[in-house]
Amino acid sequence: MLGPNQYGKEVIRVVRVTRDGARHGLKDLTVGLTLAGDLERTYLTGDNGGVLPTDSMKNTVYAFAAQPGIGEIEDFGLGLARHFVSSQSIVGRATVRIEEHLWTRIHAEAGGDHAFVRSGAELRTAEVTYDGASTTVRSGLRDLVLLKSTGSEFRGYVRDRYTTLPETDDRVLATAVDASWLHLIADEPAGGWAQSYREARRHLVETFAELYSRSLQQTLYAMGDRLLANRPEIGEVRLSLPNRHHLLVDLSPFGLKNDNEVFHATDRPYGLIEGTVVRAPQAGRREDS
Amino acid sequence: MLGPNQYGKEVIRVVRVTRDGARHGLKDLTVGLTLAGDLERTYLTGDNGGVLPTDSMKNTVYAFAAQPGIGEIEDFGLGLARHFVSSQSIVGRATVRIEEHLWTRIHAEAGGDHAFVRSGAELRTAEVTYDGASTTVRSGLRDLVLLKSTGSEFRGYVRDRYTTLPETDDRVLATAVDASWLHLIADEPAGGWAQSYREARRHLVETFAELYSRSLQQTLYAMGDRLLANRPEIGEVRLSLPNRHHLLVDLSPFGLKNDNEVFHATDRPYGLIEGTVVRAPQAGRREDS
Amino acid sequence: MLGPNQYGKEVIRVVRVTRDGARHGLKDLTVGLTLAGDLERTYLTGDNGGVLPTDSMKNTVYAFAAQPGIGEIEDFGLGLARHFVSSQSIVGRATVRIEEHLWTRIHAEAGGDHAFVRSGAELRTAEVTYDGASTTVRSGLRDLVLLKSTGSEFRGYVRDRYTTLPETDDRVLATAVDASWLHLIADEPAGGWAQSYREARRHLVETFAELYSRSLQQTLYAMGDRLLANRPEIGEVRLSLPNRHHLLVDLSPFGLKNDNEVFHATDRPYGLIEGTVVRAPQAGRREDS
Amino acid sequence: MLGPNQYGKEVIRVVRVTRDGARHGLKDLTVGLTLAGDLERTYLTGDNGGVLPTDSMKNTVYAFAAQPGIGEIEDFGLGLARHFVSSQSIVGRATVRIEEHLWTRIHAEAGGDHAFVRSGAELRTAEVTYDGASTTVRSGLRDLVLLKSTGSEFRGYVRDRYTTLPETDDRVLATAVDASWLHLIADEPAGGWAQSYREARRHLVETFAELYSRSLQQTLYAMGDRLLANRPEIGEVRLSLPNRHHLLVDLSPFGLKNDNEVFHATDRPYGLIEGTVVRAPQAGRREDS
Repeated sequence: MLGPNQYGKEVIRVVRVTRDGARHGLKDLTVGLTLAGDLERTYLTGDNGGVLPTDSMKNTVYAFAAQPGIGEIEDFGLGLARHFVSSQSIVGRATVRIEEHLWTRIHAEAGGDHAFVRSGAELRTAEVTYDGASTTVRSGLRDLVLLKSTGSEFRGYVRDRYTTLPETDDRVLATAVDASWLHLIADEPAGGWAQSYREARRHLVETFAELYSRSLQQTLYAMGDRLLANRPEIGEVRLSLPNRHHLLVDLSPFGLKNDNEVFHATDRPYGLIEGTVVRAPQAGRREDS
Repeated sequence: MLGPNQYGKEVIRVVRVTRDGARHGLKDLTVGLTLAGDLERTYLTGDNGGVLPTDSMKNTVYAFAAQPGIGEIEDFGLGLARHFVSSQSIVGRATVRIEEHLWTRIHAEAGGDHAFVRSGAELRTAEVTYDGASTTVRSGLRDLVLLKSTGSEFRGYVRDRYTTLPETDDRVLATAVDASWLHLIADEPAGGWAQSYREARRHLVETFAELYSRSLQQTLYAMGDRLLANRPEIGEVRLSLPNRHHLLVDLSPFGLKNDNEVFHATDRPYGLIEGTVVRAPQAGRREDS
Repeated sequence: MLGPNQYGKEVIRVVRVTRDGARHGLKDLTVGLTLAGDLERTYLTGDNGGVLPTDSMKNTVYAFAAQPGIGEIEDFGLGLARHFVSSQSIVGRATVRIEEHLWTRIHAEAGGDHAFVRSGAELRTAEVTYDGASTTVRSGLRDLVLLKSTGSEFRGYVRDRYTTLPETDDRVLATAVDASWLHLIADEPAGGWAQSYREARRHLVETFAELYSRSLQQTLYAMGDRLLANRPEIGEVRLSLPNRHHLLVDLSPFGLKNDNEVFHATDRPYGLIEGTVVRAPQAGRREDS
Repeated sequence: MLGPNQYGKEVIRVVRVTRDGARHGLKDLTVGLTLAGDLERTYLTGDNGGVLPTDSMKNTVYAFAAQPGIGEIEDFGLGLARHFVSSQSIVGRATVRIEEHLWTRIHAEAGGDHAFVRSGAELRTAEVTYDGASTTVRSGLRDLVLLKSTGSEFRGYVRDRYTTLPETDDRVLATAVDASWLHLIADEPAGGWAQSYREARRHLVETFAELYSRSLQQTLYAMGDRLLANRPEIGEVRLSLPNRHHLLVDLSPFGLKNDNEVFHATDRPYGLIEGTVVRAPQAGRREDS
């Protein structure tokens, strides 16, 4: 018997230039689409009568990028998700995942107004789901790499027979933030999607910088808590924080001391801390748009 | 408020040599561990009194690799999952994910019995979860790359205003199988874990090769269906099959025809087909060990 | 017979925190070391009497990061290169390759002065070679991703029987700059290594933005030429510029036009343009330090 | 002034099915092309009158894959390299680099003769250069991952003030072989390119397995030496061998001993041993075809 199933297109790379102002605008996205619905026939018999090709999904992304255009990624996702469900009777649920690659305009002395430099590895993200009745919008970011060189300790933990880790009251704490937050209402918030994103990002970054951290778990919770406290449009925050261990190098064989100054930055193995911070029940639940 | 949360250690690379026979044995694993339980204190206050360091988890993997040793990865996972739940009162659920890198012994003319060549990118996998009461064992594989140069078509699909894909009655079908299957009972099956894995893999590969495919969805279902039909120890199969598109190159500008002979192998965007095949209800549910 | 040979350690990840000011400093490097010399014995007989272990090389990087510290990467490379040649009689030539991962200090409202956010994928680089007599210092950068949405054409090229590319008088031009430049003298230039790097980077970026480009080759040459014209300390510039093709999407099947607005950003295959720009002979040759 | 320069197309993915026998054949290649010549005009002025677009180079690969077909990769490279130099007056030198992805036919019980499973990450390679007068053919392989669990030591090395590595008389030795060898004559050797490759690979693998290794350098030289001793068509072997360190885990804190049985497989930093083995002069030099 066929259980849960879905299909879609991954890694659709679309770049949209807007040429209507004095200076060009630029949007650079990677889009993933997933459709689910009454697809049993193709699985069981190979009858594709209800299957929209993933190639057509890809084409739809490019066509929508042209008309109506991309705008903010949350809106672009909403338009696509609603299109697939409303136009394909067999599709019961559409999920659109968008990663926005960020660019900064170059300010050159002698013109060159239409040139850009990629801002880094960090991505702004959106995930929109529509099932014909309710709509969910999550905004987020990925690969926001943060490090603090002090203001972090790790001690008082459980010691079992396999524990050799020394306690520390001053360590380097580094992570690559993968965060997403649920909008209580699937409509553009007051101030707009872009401002909501910028402020959310600011709260995450500042909490990491300001909080004296006793564990990466504590930092995670504080980041989500502050986001909820400051942004009423958001109902839930999911955070996944790899612990990018910076190991203090033993320099004593060389007659040198190491007062938290020289570290070996490892990439594997790594700790991974995951958690969700949600509004207390009285705060109301998200409404479907 | 804190919602769902968990933590663990990722990408623990352990290689175990067994030296008790005439020829060395070799096991090469990447292990990931995830613990969940009553961890609220560290998130809310940074009190680590209930937190087993992820460094200790890593040490445990190495210690268990020494004693009792690794054996089959399903057994290794079972031992680790049970250890964390039974030894840490605060841990309610432990999940162990293992990828086994496969090696083939080199048969050299002049000895060298203890040398190996890596078998490829394909990985054998296991995922074991224990929550104090029930145990779940999934076996699987990843990055099993398959291609058939004929015996695949794709037509009769929905055409909307964004559909440009031409129908084809003969195409290259290629994928990288990511599959896992649930054992109905979390104990070693008759014949052993290794034989169960080998046979499961054989059924997946042979189904791909033998089935005339009208869609990758149909191939997916047939692979899972045959696995369930032939292996009574298995209760459910999850498959994720990227469609590694091979695009027929238009050679007509060069005065050449292309009768399904020359293809551009693309890697992005790609279709992704996902599905679960489950036993019909009368077939019985898995029992907890 | 043994021909050219060398050995070394790759991907040494060292993070150095300086704690002597009001706010911590941070240096984050990946270092690669290569030694060459009279190493024939170990190759031919396995006699390691002249081989400094690569593990010791790694230790040396950490020890030097502690004392004298890192400073600018060119200086750090000079110290290491000279150390290996002067302390190991068998080593005839040492090459130190450094990639600096860049961080930006976080300005949080409530303190957190010692926190940083990673600036992106772009790397600042240095390569220092010392052979006992002469020293070579190359500075550079990698993964500086640039795009211009207009001001680029490609036409008038050769057409052979395999040419199908349409000419364009307005295209998106994008690349990931990999550049290095040779310092005429292996000593810190007036203004310092950091300023020299910043100015060199600025000239590369501005040339890309400002130049109306008839080919990526022309852009490459102009970037190097401007660097040489403005920075007397530099004697040669090497540039490797992948052409990150942005393909105009054909929207006509959907009844839409595409006036250079919607692009498919491909990653493979890609064009690769490489070139060196050197000072004309009268400009003098670099002197060894 | 413009110094050394070249341009080309990278990562052209071509899959060729041959359908003329009872069972289909399959060739799966990644091709890179580099042209050099009198290209100064486009660099200096953007005049593309002598520039063959990299898009046309890509088309040529697909057209040649159709007609005359691929055959062995050395021959495919020879045809392409000669084509570019002979058909483009401005091109002085063409280099063709080919990686062949290897597939194994699936032997299914119920037919499916045209299905294949990817053999792994290992690649067979060829690099052909033609400059109008002379031709060079290098065959090779990459990502051949080898490990021996005993029969390797490392001791007697230099100890400086930064050396902490303990000597070992029994270690795990692992590497990923990157090798290429020069054919003395740029024509198909007796027995054919495929047999020459298979035998070369066999000698590399067997030497690794059989040789008691005192250093990875010694292993490298022995591999090249045996290849030259057994294959008269080969004049030089280049080897690049990363040392994939397997670190013995200290289990003593857990009351366990570790007799070379449990290892942490690290990936960075890693040692890198490089060397060339050449025929002694009297053996004659390669002739140009």
